[in-house]
Amino acid sequence: MLIVVKTERCWNLEHTCISQDDVQKIVIACNKYKVPIVPYGGATSLEGQTLAPHGGVCIDMSLMKKIKSLNVDDLDIVVEPGIGWIELNEYLKPYGLFFPLDPGPGATIGGMCATRCSGSLAVRYGTMRENVINLQAVLANGEVVKTGSRARKSAAGYDLARLLIGSEGTLGIITEVTLRLQRLPQHSVVAMCNFQTIKEAADVAIATMHSGIQVSRVELLDEVQVKAINIANVKNLPEVPTLMFEFIGTEAYAQEQMLIVQKIVSEHNGSDFVYVEDAEAKEELWKIRKGALWACYAMAPNNYEAITTDVCVPLSRLAECISKSKQELDASPLLCMVIAHAGDGNFHTVIIFDPDQEEHCQEAERLNHFMIHTALSMEGTCTGEHGVGTGKMKYLEKELGTGALRTMKRIKSVLDPNDIMNPGKLIPPHICI
Amino acid sequence: MLIVVKTERCWNLEHTCISQDDVQKIVIACNKYKVPIVPYGGATSLEGQTLAPHGGVCIDMSLMKKIKSLNVDDLDIVVEPGIGWIELNEYLKPYGLFFPLDPGPGATIGGMCATRCSGSLAVRYGTMRENVINLQAVLANGEVVKTGSRARKSAAGYDLARLLIGSEGTLGIITEVTLRLQRLPQHSVVAMCNFQTIKEAADVAIATMHSGIQVSRVELLDEVQVKAINIANVKNLPEVPTLMFEFIGTEAYAQEQMLIVQKIVSEHNGSDFVYVEDAEAKEELWKIRKGALWACYAMAPNNYEAITTDVCVPLSRLAECISKSKQELDASPLLCMVIAHAGDGNFHTVIIFDPDQEEHCQEAERLNHFMIHTALSMEGTCTGEHGVGTGKMKYLEKELGTGALRTMKRIKSVLDPNDIMNPGKLIPPHICI
Repeated sequence: MLIVVKTERCWNLEHTCISQDDVQKIVIACNKYKVPIVPYGGATSLEGQTLAPHGGVCIDMSLMKKIKSLNVDDLDIVVEPGIGWIELNEYLKPYGLFFPLDPGPGATIGGMCATRCSGSLAVRYGTMRENVINLQAVLANGEVVKTGSRARKSAAGYDLARLLIGSEGTLGIITEVTLRLQRLPQHSVVAMCNFQTIKEAADVAIATMHSGIQVSRVELLDEVQVKAINIANVKNLPEVPTLMFEFIGTEAYAQEQMLIVQKIVSEHNGSDFVYVEDAEAKEELWKIRKGALWACYAMAPNNYEAITTDVCVPLSRLAECISKSKQELDASPLLCMVIAHAGDGNFHTVIIFDPDQEEHCQEAERLNHFMIHTALSMEGTCTGEHGVGTGKMKYLEKELGTGALRTMKRIKSVLDPNDIMNPGKLIPPHICI
Repeated sequence: MLIVVKTERCWNLEHTCISQDDVQKIVIACNKYKVPIVPYGGATSLEGQTLAPHGGVCIDMSLMKKIKSLNVDDLDIVVEPGIGWIELNEYLKPYGLFFPLDPGPGATIGGMCATRCSGSLAVRYGTMRENVINLQAVLANGEVVKTGSRARKSAAGYDLARLLIGSEGTLGIITEVTLRLQRLPQHSVVAMCNFQTIKEAADVAIATMHSGIQVSRVELLDEVQVKAINIANVKNLPEVPTLMFEFIGTEAYAQEQMLIVQKIVSEHNGSDFVYVEDAEAKEELWKIRKGALWACYAMAPNNYEAITTDVCVPLSRLAECISKSKQELDASPLLCMVIAHAGDGNFHTVIIFDPDQEEHCQEAERLNHFMIHTALSMEGTCTGEHGVGTGKMKYLEKELGTGALRTMKRIKSVLDPNDIMNPGKLIPPHICI
């Protein structure tokens, strides 16, 4: 049975929101009766993090979304976990600030911490790991833990914030987050260019990372993805491997970066290098990239679904990993599109399939499995930014070895002895202490 | 009794170095007989991290310093923990690469991980937390744990690397480190300027952080520190609060950043803004900063010693925190100099004292205590980069609360039930599970 703590009637009659005290009371009660708890944010996670395989109480953390304090001079903000990153950025815009992580549009800050998410700007600003100053969380025994101060750096004790970031609700429920903020860039330039092969495009991404400039986005789209974008947006882009860049900084520096990369592109047989500086034109270009997943659906019947894979390899292996994957994808009867955060070595494949056809489901699963094993054979990871949930559990042992998983299980067991915190996720069930 | 495993005669007759297998054997034996282990790197830590209050076996990790693989295209390197950051950078220089953390000259990579260190470049590149891709460690039960892959980002399970970084050898012994590397900057400009008050200097540091440029160093020196530098180096610098900057990037961008900061300085009553671009002149300027601690000794009799404090506060509180501390320092009979990584809100006071005079020792301790409590009252931390060791244990509860410390103790107890890993450090002894 799954109980959703979502409305005023379920909890706290006088308010439409929940507080840390409320969360603490729920946790203490659940721990007493050994009832599983599933924290639920924007539910945009892709690996089953918000499923409830053992039933239990689901806490809708989007009811806890206050901004507690904005500290403009300190370039930080203290928020409750349920606020979405888009809402947060709307709030911050008048102050000339923003929070630089951009996963799926509905994602909440708490969920983004829980899954250690990143996005297209991670190449410049890092992941949630690098952008959280402090956390508060309620642990399984009901204890409220504060992981640090509001100082931008600290060497005071075990890094409990980083332990919670990426723990997917299995160690505690995040109730407060202090985030590092960034100044909105003075200027930006967005550029786009085409290649005959994925390898050339990936090589340019690597060369850009080596050039010493600090590019803020390097996104790679394969020819199928561009085709999907053309169909969905009635565009006429060349249907070849494509790179999109964003350069930020002062006007002069953004332009200088663009010229450096334009030179790199021309040295690697790139073509059709275009760039835009006008605000509307830039938004139009990024809208294309941001709508890539939805564009994929435009190529398939209405009832089809998509799974999005998520591997990450050392930079130098990206071209090889994508090329090897593409051979398999192109030979598959399923429609598959590749999109990569190429500066990080992270790429996704959107696989479109009919969920009612068993062979489609099996083929999608096979392709995902193939790509993960290819990435692991190249010293990569089974998940660059989507997390483990239930979907990636079976790959962790190959990636990390039994020692690491036993260590995780030991930590889990001592902090949550009754296994009430999002059970059945992240640590493979067969791992023994 | 303290046994130092340091020479060939103690361990491994055939080699002058030790291996992960050797470390594992030592740990298994020590765990069996419940003998404490103290890992020992460059021993440049400042809070007693390498003391052996309970005796035991001290493993000299500087015997384990191989470079295992340099991956130029991936901008990473796999090393053993005993290599020093200066040796590492000498090795990397011909490849146009460097590792951007610069603590005390003798520090080793393993020790830098263990204490979660940073340095003057953290404002641009982050701390050890942000610059380690993967670790291997031997845990108390002898198990070898690999924390991740070689991908630049990953969301695969609990962040065991970050848990070990800053754990000061209390959870395991780090035996391999994969580090992110950076391209040596094409160009750099070093600048220096003077202020009438510490507040004006700190305000310029904050304004620089808000300007949107990515300064690579912002160091603040108080007038006493400058005086010490003058004496030690036979210089004639104005003995007033001073800021030193480093700007990196392309030549044009480094110069543009310098001009932006020059304007900020003039708006905040700064004076004598000078900048240098010539390699020798830059080295000369940074040598002054890097030799600051040694310069302090030049102002005191030979037998005097120095303690270096290390607090960090939110950026906006830096001026207030330093000013409040300075009142106390200036009124003290001891000689005290302030030096700050101002872009991070982190500052050190070098307190010179006669270790043979009890009242000197007490006064040094009193000043340290005063500064820590001042920082904690401003949402800061008792240690920005030096770590906890034995010296800062007593402040952790005030900073983090009992819940966080109990959580740390639980993790320690499950990973090291016999408390053999660097016991008596980091977690205050009175904390119960």
